[in-house]
Amino acid sequence: MIIVMKRGASAQEIESVCQRLQKEGFSIHMSEGVEKTIIGAVGDKSRVVISNLEGLDGVEKIVPVLQPYKLAGRDFRQEDTVIRIGDVEIGGGQIQVFSGPCAVESWEQLLEAALAVKKAGARILRGGAFKPRSSPYAFQGLEEQGLKLLARAREETGLLIVTEVMDPRSIDLIAEYSDILQVGARNMQNFHLLRELSKINKPILLKRGLSATIEEWLMAAEYIMSGGNYDVILCERGIRTFETATRNTLDLSAIPVIKSLSHLPIIVDPSHGCGKWQLVRPMSMAALAAGADGLMIEVHPNPAEALCDGPQSLKPHKFVSLMDELRGVAGLMGRTI
Amino acid sequence: MIIVMKRGASAQEIESVCQRLQKEGFSIHMSEGVEKTIIGAVGDKSRVVISNLEGLDGVEKIVPVLQPYKLAGRDFRQEDTVIRIGDVEIGGGQIQVFSGPCAVESWEQLLEAALAVKKAGARILRGGAFKPRSSPYAFQGLEEQGLKLLARAREETGLLIVTEVMDPRSIDLIAEYSDILQVGARNMQNFHLLRELSKINKPILLKRGLSATIEEWLMAAEYIMSGGNYDVILCERGIRTFETATRNTLDLSAIPVIKSLSHLPIIVDPSHGCGKWQLVRPMSMAALAAGADGLMIEVHPNPAEALCDGPQSLKPHKFVSLMDELRGVAGLMGRTI
Amino acid sequence: MIIVMKRGASAQEIESVCQRLQKEGFSIHMSEGVEKTIIGAVGDKSRVVISNLEGLDGVEKIVPVLQPYKLAGRDFRQEDTVIRIGDVEIGGGQIQVFSGPCAVESWEQLLEAALAVKKAGARILRGGAFKPRSSPYAFQGLEEQGLKLLARAREETGLLIVTEVMDPRSIDLIAEYSDILQVGARNMQNFHLLRELSKINKPILLKRGLSATIEEWLMAAEYIMSGGNYDVILCERGIRTFETATRNTLDLSAIPVIKSLSHLPIIVDPSHGCGKWQLVRPMSMAALAAGADGLMIEVHPNPAEALCDGPQSLKPHKFVSLMDELRGVAGLMGRTI
Amino acid sequence: MIIVMKRGASAQEIESVCQRLQKEGFSIHMSEGVEKTIIGAVGDKSRVVISNLEGLDGVEKIVPVLQPYKLAGRDFRQEDTVIRIGDVEIGGGQIQVFSGPCAVESWEQLLEAALAVKKAGARILRGGAFKPRSSPYAFQGLEEQGLKLLARAREETGLLIVTEVMDPRSIDLIAEYSDILQVGARNMQNFHLLRELSKINKPILLKRGLSATIEEWLMAAEYIMSGGNYDVILCERGIRTFETATRNTLDLSAIPVIKSLSHLPIIVDPSHGCGKWQLVRPMSMAALAAGADGLMIEVHPNPAEALCDGPQSLKPHKFVSLMDELRGVAGLMGRTI
Repeated sequence: MIIVMKRGASAQEIESVCQRLQKEGFSIHMSEGVEKTIIGAVGDKSRVVISNLEGLDGVEKIVPVLQPYKLAGRDFRQEDTVIRIGDVEIGGGQIQVFSGPCAVESWEQLLEAALAVKKAGARILRGGAFKPRSSPYAFQGLEEQGLKLLARAREETGLLIVTEVMDPRSIDLIAEYSDILQVGARNMQNFHLLRELSKINKPILLKRGLSATIEEWLMAAEYIMSGGNYDVILCERGIRTFETATRNTLDLSAIPVIKSLSHLPIIVDPSHGCGKWQLVRPMSMAALAAGADGLMIEVHPNPAEALCDGPQSLKPHKFVSLMDELRGVAGLMGRTI
Repeated sequence: MIIVMKRGASAQEIESVCQRLQKEGFSIHMSEGVEKTIIGAVGDKSRVVISNLEGLDGVEKIVPVLQPYKLAGRDFRQEDTVIRIGDVEIGGGQIQVFSGPCAVESWEQLLEAALAVKKAGARILRGGAFKPRSSPYAFQGLEEQGLKLLARAREETGLLIVTEVMDPRSIDLIAEYSDILQVGARNMQNFHLLRELSKINKPILLKRGLSATIEEWLMAAEYIMSGGNYDVILCERGIRTFETATRNTLDLSAIPVIKSLSHLPIIVDPSHGCGKWQLVRPMSMAALAAGADGLMIEVHPNPAEALCDGPQSLKPHKFVSLMDELRGVAGLMGRTI
Repeated sequence: MIIVMKRGASAQEIESVCQRLQKEGFSIHMSEGVEKTIIGAVGDKSRVVISNLEGLDGVEKIVPVLQPYKLAGRDFRQEDTVIRIGDVEIGGGQIQVFSGPCAVESWEQLLEAALAVKKAGARILRGGAFKPRSSPYAFQGLEEQGLKLLARAREETGLLIVTEVMDPRSIDLIAEYSDILQVGARNMQNFHLLRELSKINKPILLKRGLSATIEEWLMAAEYIMSGGNYDVILCERGIRTFETATRNTLDLSAIPVIKSLSHLPIIVDPSHGCGKWQLVRPMSMAALAAGADGLMIEVHPNPAEALCDGPQSLKPHKFVSLMDELRGVAGLMGRTI
Repeated sequence: MIIVMKRGASAQEIESVCQRLQKEGFSIHMSEGVEKTIIGAVGDKSRVVISNLEGLDGVEKIVPVLQPYKLAGRDFRQEDTVIRIGDVEIGGGQIQVFSGPCAVESWEQLLEAALAVKKAGARILRGGAFKPRSSPYAFQGLEEQGLKLLARAREETGLLIVTEVMDPRSIDLIAEYSDILQVGARNMQNFHLLRELSKINKPILLKRGLSATIEEWLMAAEYIMSGGNYDVILCERGIRTFETATRNTLDLSAIPVIKSLSHLPIIVDPSHGCGKWQLVRPMSMAALAAGADGLMIEVHPNPAEALCDGPQSLKPHKFVSLMDELRGVAGLMGRTI
């Protein structure tokens, strides 16, 4: 950690900062500049409490040197993490497409979507049973009944199931039915939920918060990993910016940034990222070309009748042709779908 | 609701949109422009499902006309909501200052802060027992032990207590000790938490999410109110922007905007909003001048030793003199502290 | 245009709005809802003055129906615009890569970069002679001397030249040496500059402003086109967001959005968009996969000695291998480089 | 400046960074941590070229220690800058309100506004003769004719005149008529314009760019000051964020931040900052309470007929009563209007 002292900080102020640092177990390296004094503090402490040093007289700013995450970082693990569920690999040579309706509405709707997903060659079925909705008056999901339909769809199609968990109290219930548990963007920093998920032995799909920095996102993954669950899949789903032409701004540069900082797999959700089905195709192509390990794409047999996010859902036939195009990009990247 | 059709939408496309609207129970008003046709749909439906109309052929965009919130809006209630706890009023003529340490660390620390708060003339003591921390390795709060200390501080000082709830499972425990329950920025859209809080009979302090629009914020209040708990206090605590000179950007224009849209009281937290104690004084003055009903200010007997948010905490003597200045602004606004 | 009246707007307020609209030459379509009255106004007026209607008593909001741009929109021209300079096509089947150093520093530096660009198969050489720098103490460019070096590099290599114009007073000078004139992000809304550029007969490369919406960007293109210069090339170069892991956030979804709204060609600048050379390769691949018509990539023979933007510049050999990879993506998109 | 080396950087990489630094004239202070090596480089160089060190092998990041601005900073000048024009002081004990119509439309309109401004007790008349408009089809201002009307209004009322300059070619013309020259938000980084303005001897009102950081804003002031014109007045006018309830988000925390970093006066423009006249009153009160040296407020005799920004303009009688309220806040701050 580096402490930059204010121009004109007194010798006494500098001294008391050093004493405080030594008290905290740091060794000190002074660097007196023409205008300002810099103190290098060597040791391994949580940056958080240390931030208090900013309150000390004469201190201008604190510059952390070490990343706050350990387990999620490349320093901890050099090679990419590959998560295996049966013969399905996430983070390896195989691109995985997580696909299905935003919300499970009925057996007919789910089955039709699942068969389309299967036919197109995807291996993982997505569908919401518990839905986070900005309005208390909007459809909130079929809850356990929805989970049962997802399990039934798995039996019929052999697809793996991913569904969202919003509440620590429903983790056991959802884990009973689902192969992968999804944490939505609004819950990325729901720390009690993350801590409970760190105790289960199923992979967690962790969506990036609407205004989460990449560092905060990796710290959320750290919560899950620090409890013993190392199977975390990151999902970029768009960040909130001033631009209103799209629902969110899909930050594809997050893919190579994550690949350099972390060993965890990362997928992209262009459906939520853009909010319009017309943008799903080009942004899916772009995500794979940028190095994503997979995609999450909403497919609905009848978007105009969907109870949730219809405008961003692909019709089954469009999804099938998109998968064909994606195979081309995957091949170019030396991967398969 | 208004449906704007694309330039060159076919008569058949327009017709099928109208049929769909009528099927949904809307009455139709057509407006054929030189270049585009506009369909006015009169009825009262959730805008959410209707958004699917955007998926219909020929539709360019949907423009909702009614606000999505009902109970939180001025239309529902013209006069300001005033929340009373004993002789303490929130939203009335009396400005309320919620003050105390970010986290409860020890009896000595809490008592010293509480006495300073009391001496300065504030009526409500804040202190975190369960702390949302971006790092799993940072101090997470004293939990129930912290709640007990808060209750003891109430006995000693007569101050009301406000503390944060992060988890639906701990609502009963916290409600047992606290007079007001706080929902933090990261949980503003933790809908299961909001729904549980709608069932208790204590006021809820609802902080604005880091990237929540004012409409989303009011919809979060609507979740709490729709379950029967009308005592919601809104708290502006800064939004996330590109500016890094401050921890967040305090959006004071949210005060008059909320006052025009809603009848709920609104307070401002300049400590989290700015992240630096030096900015707390000017932004507190500004918040009251903009019409805020109160403030939430962090006070710590020894910020440099604080386990959380030291840099943004005021020392007791600074808080006392700030309160004196605030009385001047309150008086100017025809209010008291 | 649609005028949404406030709930409870009086008959007189509604009447006076209608009178004002009719005075402005609009025909009226009323739609009285349960709670609110909506007025559809048919006519073709600038949305700008009309915005004043928001000031009239009883008006809640104005919703424009027509896009503010005409010449830049798809409605004006269905097929894609293809700009031709000699045998170089921009916006057609051929992907164009604009490449070279951020700033022209010396003949040796420019020649080495130009030869690498040529060898790699690109056709357009970029290089700054007039540099917009956030510090008055930073290198401001070689000015006319830099232009002369660019022209000399064109003679040596046959590459086309693109360079930035910052000042209406230097348009003639730059147009004398350059094949394409670039408007930087900071000048996207320098309207006097845009108006002067609308009078010349060379293509304009218009970069998106750091916080410009796509609509504002197209309106800037409209400025250039409205004066008679239809050869505008749009360039996405990243927008400013809260994320600090990258210099800016490259908004690749702008590519399909622009393609749906406008007929103008769009290229992407991943060098400025990300600010790190390590991200240039994956984001270049992604940009082409998303449908971009070209790329602008910074190449410098010795980035560590560059006078400007070294960290985001590729070394020549890295650029050569990137071009090979880009050919693969271009082929997949049915295009060539 | 501090160079943070990557974990596992080789001794050779560290050595070559040190050699490069020494070559650039820096003296070196090494700090070898458990995981990373930090190099403190003492010397005074432009941070810009140095940023290239980020391109060197083994370097993780560069942390600048010194502020990039000199003349605009508190380090250069401890006491506040007070700008005097006749008996009008800006930045001193007297709060200045710059007021008038967005655009000069006619003599009648301007005179009526000017008389209201005068009557209310303000001393500076604002009015646009050259208007930056996002649409080429919108009213662009009366240009020189508008300047003549402003000068005539000054003769009639004795008010000082401030008007916007957009183009280096019109500086002389505008300086001939105006007492203060305004640089609009879109031109904050129009560096050639800033450089020309550094050569004149009239005060410059420098508006903050829509997405300019406070540091970039002070660097823009540095451009003007570095050429010899030290009379710069900063104007906060709202930044662009995700929130759409207001035209921009007025960043009042910029006031105390600027006061701590710089000696320059700062005023606030709540009209553009919020975009709605209803918000002008509360945000004007708040701006003064936060320590602003003045305000810029749009006043129009008939907002509904305004050719520009009608919705955010106050009617004369509302402005008069606002000024009375502002006197109360000014008094509380120990200042006068």
